[in-house]
Amino acid sequence: MNKTELLYEGKAKKIWKTDDQNLLISEFKDSLTAFNGEKKSSEEGKGALNNEISTELFKYLEQKGIPTHYVSTIDSNNMLHKKAEVIYIEVIVRNIATGSLSKNLGIADKTVLPFTLVELDYKNDELGDPKLNDQHCLILNLVNDTAELDYIRYMARRINSILVDFYLDLNITVVDFKLEFGRDKDGNIILIDELSPDNFRLWDVKTGDKLDKDRFREGLGGLIEAYKLVLERIKNRNK
Amino acid sequence: MNKTELLYEGKAKKIWKTDDQNLLISEFKDSLTAFNGEKKSSEEGKGALNNEISTELFKYLEQKGIPTHYVSTIDSNNMLHKKAEVIYIEVIVRNIATGSLSKNLGIADKTVLPFTLVELDYKNDELGDPKLNDQHCLILNLVNDTAELDYIRYMARRINSILVDFYLDLNITVVDFKLEFGRDKDGNIILIDELSPDNFRLWDVKTGDKLDKDRFREGLGGLIEAYKLVLERIKNRNK
Repeated sequence: MNKTELLYEGKAKKIWKTDDQNLLISEFKDSLTAFNGEKKSSEEGKGALNNEISTELFKYLEQKGIPTHYVSTIDSNNMLHKKAEVIYIEVIVRNIATGSLSKNLGIADKTVLPFTLVELDYKNDELGDPKLNDQHCLILNLVNDTAELDYIRYMARRINSILVDFYLDLNITVVDFKLEFGRDKDGNIILIDELSPDNFRLWDVKTGDKLDKDRFREGLGGLIEAYKLVLERIKNRNK
Repeated sequence: MNKTELLYEGKAKKIWKTDDQNLLISEFKDSLTAFNGEKKSSEEGKGALNNEISTELFKYLEQKGIPTHYVSTIDSNNMLHKKAEVIYIEVIVRNIATGSLSKNLGIADKTVLPFTLVELDYKNDELGDPKLNDQHCLILNLVNDTAELDYIRYMARRINSILVDFYLDLNITVVDFKLEFGRDKDGNIILIDELSPDNFRLWDVKTGDKLDKDRFREGLGGLIEAYKLVLERIKNRNK
């Protein structure tokens, strides 16, 4: 499958059209941004690591019955996937309070939540991804009805449940993560975007070490080493 | 009924204990604040106007079957009401997009919403009253279950429906407003706080003039005259 035209360049990926109008290629970039683009950097090899980690997780979720946009992995930085009409909602799934949740609502850092929290943020960089309730989603025409939001929350919780177990086997705690959904050519809502440590907070169960983009956000260093460790544990899981 | 002890002093009211443990007195102050307390002023007579307008609206809502904390009006600035355990949620009801909704979600100012929007904000000045979804309300222990939130939204829409009609008869458009609820001694959820132009956006139907606290927020002047006009129309409504 060949790239034909650059459709969109985001903060961490380029999206390319292909010869097949129903398929796109995501090219994972090495660039890193945080705080809505205010902090920027680049780490050689980050894009390839995210492509490989995302590949493993998309395949695993598909095996578990979760519909995703994943088709195949072309090479180190390129993934072939279904074209989907993006739903402009960032679905935030949280098991442990930290980061913006702790800051915004005054919940002590590292508090284990009484249940998995699913938040809906408006995927809109210009507005700083504000929090939405269900009625906002309807007013902004982001979905057709609240049943779609219920389905998205259901899928987000299913995915959380699968990935918490998956990572726990690798001695990694899934703290929180961001998902995106879209509609495939038949109108089905499917999981899109990527599943990498750029969008997941992952803590080592034993040491508590952060194995995710917080290493960049907080200036801790060792980001590539952390992402490599995550990938290594994923690839060695059945050995 | 005598004031015995100052229970709490807020931005616009002092709340006093009384000889009756189930009753409190709200003393309406002339002070004005906006932008979470960043802008401050005082307008002589504002407290008395808010007390009188709130009195009229509480009585009207009670007549229409809405349970409120209102008991009686003592004098120009003092209202006797039931003691209630405050639910720390600011219930924002919006018919027309303006102010923070327009700014935060990029909805053009003065857009008539496709349906009445009810938002839940965390009543917490220190945190800047952040937006909540239903799950946040449970995690923060603000309510016992989501059925209570559904009831609060239901009551907020009922109150909106009653007050939109009430004010439309007075040639005033109810743009948006903030409600607070609490639990009375029997555990019933009732409407508390105040119902004044400090918490309501009210626009003159014919001229579009702002008859509410936006006159202060936006430095338009004429706040007392606007509040007086609202009260005058309310009192003359059946003549």
